Amino acid sequence: MATSTSADSTRERIVAAATAEFSRYGIAGARIERIAKEARTSKERVYAYFRSKEALYQFIAEQELNAVSEATRMNPADLPEYAGRVHDYLVAHPDRFRLMNWGRLEFADSSASPDDPVYVTVRHKIEQLRKAQDAGYLDPAWDPIDILVIVNQIAMAWAGQLDLVEAAADQVRDPSLAARRAAVVAVVQRLFPAVATPDARQA
Amino acid sequence: MATSTSADSTRERIVAAATAEFSRYGIAGARIERIAKEARTSKERVYAYFRSKEALYQFIAEQELNAVSEATRMNPADLPEYAGRVHDYLVAHPDRFRLMNWGRLEFADSSASPDDPVYVTVRHKIEQLRKAQDAGYLDPAWDPIDILVIVNQIAMAWAGQLDLVEAAADQVRDPSLAARRAAVVAVVQRLFPAVATPDARQA
Repeated sequence: MATSTSADSTRERIVAAATAEFSRYGIAGARIERIAKEARTSKERVYAYFRSKEALYQFIAEQELNAVSEATRMNPADLPEYAGRVHDYLVAHPDRFRLMNWGRLEFADSSASPDDPVYVTVRHKIEQLRKAQDAGYLDPAWDPIDILVIVNQIAMAWAGQLDLVEAAADQVRDPSLAARRAAVVAVVQRLFPAVATPDARQA
Repeated sequence: MATSTSADSTRERIVAAATAEFSRYGIAGARIERIAKEARTSKERVYAYFRSKEALYQFIAEQELNAVSEATRMNPADLPEYAGRVHDYLVAHPDRFRLMNWGRLEFADSSASPDDPVYVTVRHKIEQLRKAQDAGYLDPAWDPIDILVIVNQIAMAWAGQLDLVEAAADQVRDPSLAARRAAVVAVVQRLFPAVATPDARQA
């Protein structure tokens, strides 16, 4: 039992150290030596758990994709508050936002397989939106893939560029983070208004 | 004259090679050796023109920022078509979109100075939007910085993730690029409708 616990915690330390390393340096820039040192283990142990740096990144990215979906739970009948939750999550975890962005840039060339976790998540969410359109909760005029991508895009608007608020300080009416969140929610509300559903938790 | 022309064209070849290199590998991943080789010159010549890899990147990023502003010309009285133009530009030049995204990720830690070209552009555009609000062309209820960031964000929605259309192929009603552009324009039109102005070219 002691051995298993110790192995588990080594693995957890590797994942924590790698998350910080990837977030800061990206995938190409990440160094397994630094991850091993930070996790108080050896390069060899890291490769015993994860066969390559890329596999380690993919493991963390998939975990993170699940964490954000779990934390923000898309409800197609209330996309404004969903966008607010995504905004909150990303602003609270800028390191995780960076982590995902590196992957998008660095793996853009490699053609992902249809069972790539990002694609699986996207197809699942489009299906949720399509059903909400059928049920009359969402304007059926939009192609659901556009709803998904544009809502996410609006939800992410402020995550990576809050520095602009300070840079334009004297031109900003309300520099608070609450004002940014309110704008994100109001924009999505104007596009895809929340509706009362028989079961508001249906999604 | 011949010397000057030759120097100019060496510099141009360096910039062209560096643009491709940065777009593909990012700043940390870019190699001056590869840039020099591709530009048919030497590492030393590259450093004679640009004092460092970062300075070379900053030069190209600033040039690109001007090019996209020039090509897309924000008109605060017609933000939907402005968003359409940004979409067109980025979809036509995915390499330039990548180039700018690397910078956002890799220089996120370094605190930019107030005269950073991105900040100067942002302040100029906020001022355009504020004036349009005063003139009655744009809903004055929004903080102009939110208008700017959210419109840009919507305009960029499809630039980096057209792969999702293929990944969700059987769930997409119209997979054409024209359908994506139409969604971007329609979304911005719903938020910030275009208005007829006395001088439609005023911005």
